[in-house]
Amino acid sequence: MQTIDLRIDAGWIVPVEPHGTLPGHAIIVDGGRILAVVPTRAADLAYVARTRVALPGHALVPGLVNAHTHAAMTLFRGIADDIPLQAWLDDHIWPREAQFMGPEFVYDGTRLAAAEMLKGGVTCFNDMYFYPDAAARASLEVGIRAMLGIVLLDFPTPYASDADAYLQSGLAVRDAHKHAPTLCFALAPHAPYTVGNAAWEKVVMYARQLDLPIHTHLAETAFEVAQSREQHGGTPLARLHALGATGPGFIGVHAVHLDAADMDLLARHGGHVVHCPISNMKLGSGIAPVAALQARGVNVALGTDGAASNNRLDILGEMRMASLLAKVGSGDPAVLPAQQALEMATLGGARALGLERIVGSLVPGKAADIVAVDLSAGELLPCYDPVSHLVHVAGREHVTDVWVGGERVVADRVLTRIDAAALTARAHSWQERLK
Amino acid sequence: MQTIDLRIDAGWIVPVEPHGTLPGHAIIVDGGRILAVVPTRAADLAYVARTRVALPGHALVPGLVNAHTHAAMTLFRGIADDIPLQAWLDDHIWPREAQFMGPEFVYDGTRLAAAEMLKGGVTCFNDMYFYPDAAARASLEVGIRAMLGIVLLDFPTPYASDADAYLQSGLAVRDAHKHAPTLCFALAPHAPYTVGNAAWEKVVMYARQLDLPIHTHLAETAFEVAQSREQHGGTPLARLHALGATGPGFIGVHAVHLDAADMDLLARHGGHVVHCPISNMKLGSGIAPVAALQARGVNVALGTDGAASNNRLDILGEMRMASLLAKVGSGDPAVLPAQQALEMATLGGARALGLERIVGSLVPGKAADIVAVDLSAGELLPCYDPVSHLVHVAGREHVTDVWVGGERVVADRVLTRIDAAALTARAHSWQERLK
Repeated sequence: MQTIDLRIDAGWIVPVEPHGTLPGHAIIVDGGRILAVVPTRAADLAYVARTRVALPGHALVPGLVNAHTHAAMTLFRGIADDIPLQAWLDDHIWPREAQFMGPEFVYDGTRLAAAEMLKGGVTCFNDMYFYPDAAARASLEVGIRAMLGIVLLDFPTPYASDADAYLQSGLAVRDAHKHAPTLCFALAPHAPYTVGNAAWEKVVMYARQLDLPIHTHLAETAFEVAQSREQHGGTPLARLHALGATGPGFIGVHAVHLDAADMDLLARHGGHVVHCPISNMKLGSGIAPVAALQARGVNVALGTDGAASNNRLDILGEMRMASLLAKVGSGDPAVLPAQQALEMATLGGARALGLERIVGSLVPGKAADIVAVDLSAGELLPCYDPVSHLVHVAGREHVTDVWVGGERVVADRVLTRIDAAALTARAHSWQERLK
Repeated sequence: MQTIDLRIDAGWIVPVEPHGTLPGHAIIVDGGRILAVVPTRAADLAYVARTRVALPGHALVPGLVNAHTHAAMTLFRGIADDIPLQAWLDDHIWPREAQFMGPEFVYDGTRLAAAEMLKGGVTCFNDMYFYPDAAARASLEVGIRAMLGIVLLDFPTPYASDADAYLQSGLAVRDAHKHAPTLCFALAPHAPYTVGNAAWEKVVMYARQLDLPIHTHLAETAFEVAQSREQHGGTPLARLHALGATGPGFIGVHAVHLDAADMDLLARHGGHVVHCPISNMKLGSGIAPVAALQARGVNVALGTDGAASNNRLDILGEMRMASLLAKVGSGDPAVLPAQQALEMATLGGARALGLERIVGSLVPGKAADIVAVDLSAGELLPCYDPVSHLVHVAGREHVTDVWVGGERVVADRVLTRIDAAALTARAHSWQERLK
């Protein structure tokens, strides 16, 4: 008998690798990692657990990955919607960012976002915002895994004055946190249309030297593509490719308006796409060609975008929306079935972030990032197929327990690391200042 | 000082009529009806309440109306999805209906559906299924308002052998419940393509004689419209109009594939459309022309369709989806703003069912069908606009209390009329039989 840290028994384990469900199994966790996924009886014979958790009405799934967000913008949740993108930015977001955005804003906003995400089963997020040092502090405090963006733009903000200043600030944050096991970093040039060729060339150089992913918005609107063709003689992706930015570390977000050559290019060079179905719908951007990308073998992950244009950070909901939007977009109800949506939200996200050896599925050796979803509530009955229910019926409110690296950061719907009442008070205080 | 039955104070009252929110108000209820919506201080001076409820973090909204469902099919929730419509019907739904459908199935399925709907803030539903007597019994027991369909088809089912038998069975149920204040009835011919002209003529005759609405599926798929043009020389709606079925009592469900003449016809004759965005997406049917209908003045309500093709009975979610789908369908983020989505889910539903004098908004004289949504949870912070939050952030899990005709049928998330554990046991029993 081997003594181990944690054993979780559940009604169903949905490991993502392989597909399908394992009824009557237990996950064995030791040293923050998954040691085994075994039938209950085999677990009884082999392991003595320091902690045991029994969840007979629950499904266990890998921690969900939010592969694109602007966490701190949670403080702008619902401050303005149902209006066109440019007016939203010009009249509502940018003036408030210019006035209020700073380390305190990012720290509180990221804590609020991380709390929402963890309680909804998101154990890892890919962030693009200013003051990544504040976002790092918030993520470590709440206990969520994060890839933080070394953001840059060609125009000045309160955070930095020019491309070099953005890069040096972000790289210094990376250096300060290089040994934190739950943090990693990506270069995050905002978009092809907000970052010029000179700055992109620096991004590409640092990406190669430091082996960092490149996380950027890409082809979100038809206008962006038309403007790129006019100013640069090609699509945004073709331009980034010419600058050397594409490859297996490239994470293109939105990718609504890609042509066939763009999709072939992503497939050939191993680039990743982050699909943000709700943000694309809410801003009227269009329907990303997810099925066509997947048919070419391009990995597609899921993201929420910021809460200011969503207005939730709910990857369980994005899973369902991705499936529904692909079906209505293609006219084919067989497109993007539940298992595939779940894989996009977990392993697909891990692959996009280059973390597929560490997270994304419940297999031995990976970190114990585990989410328990209660499938016993009345509104989920009957239940013929837990995977279908996870995508088409369950909501994030059915998430009860979450482990990150073997630590239970949500226990029976309560965050274990932080004082929720104090965080609520901070949110109210920002609401008074920002409104 | 007037003694009244119930006073509910809430952070915000969202009456739908007029638009916007009333902070610091109370709803005064007496004899099952709304007597007044007044500022808290005015309430203090004028009323003594037998029961007082204080919900300072909540918004009160009118009871949501699910204007199209097949409640009993909740027992088929998720039994088969991600497959084309015809295979879904032929291989999964119809064989099981032929074997299992009966009064007991409808009674248990409708109770399960009604429980889910009430807990999610739906206080009234428009049903189309077999054995409406069993659905009536279930609705009365759980305490939900219902418009039950006098269903008919041209082909036999275990419930009835031919059009006349369907009609006579349904009309007998209506006679038996004619004095029930929370039940009403509609003629519910299944669809233009499943009911021939002879039966439609009988439907029209009864609708006129008995002043009953006509509730039918309409133009759900492009195939249905093409077939109608070929077999009947016109669109499904044009055919129904020629048969005399259109008018202010006409409720056309789905209406995905309407042409401009169809939309003009609906506008001219006062017909209603029930938009089922999630079902239309999941089955790949297409995007209904909601904005074009509303621009013509056609009333558009919201429906879930059955849980077998959704897989939830969640009108709060349909509200959000209607807004998102209209934006992405039109490319215009200003289309279908939050206030309009909320109106479709409440007053729009009441109008479609001909119940707008009784329910649909929080105004004096209407029945006290009231839903309390808790906007204080962490994942809803900050909150700048409660109406935006109701549509774009809140989920049905934030519904805590529901009143139907002044009776509190959900109290702090618990159904007050029925034993949830016994209902769960019934759902499990059906799951074993149907799987």
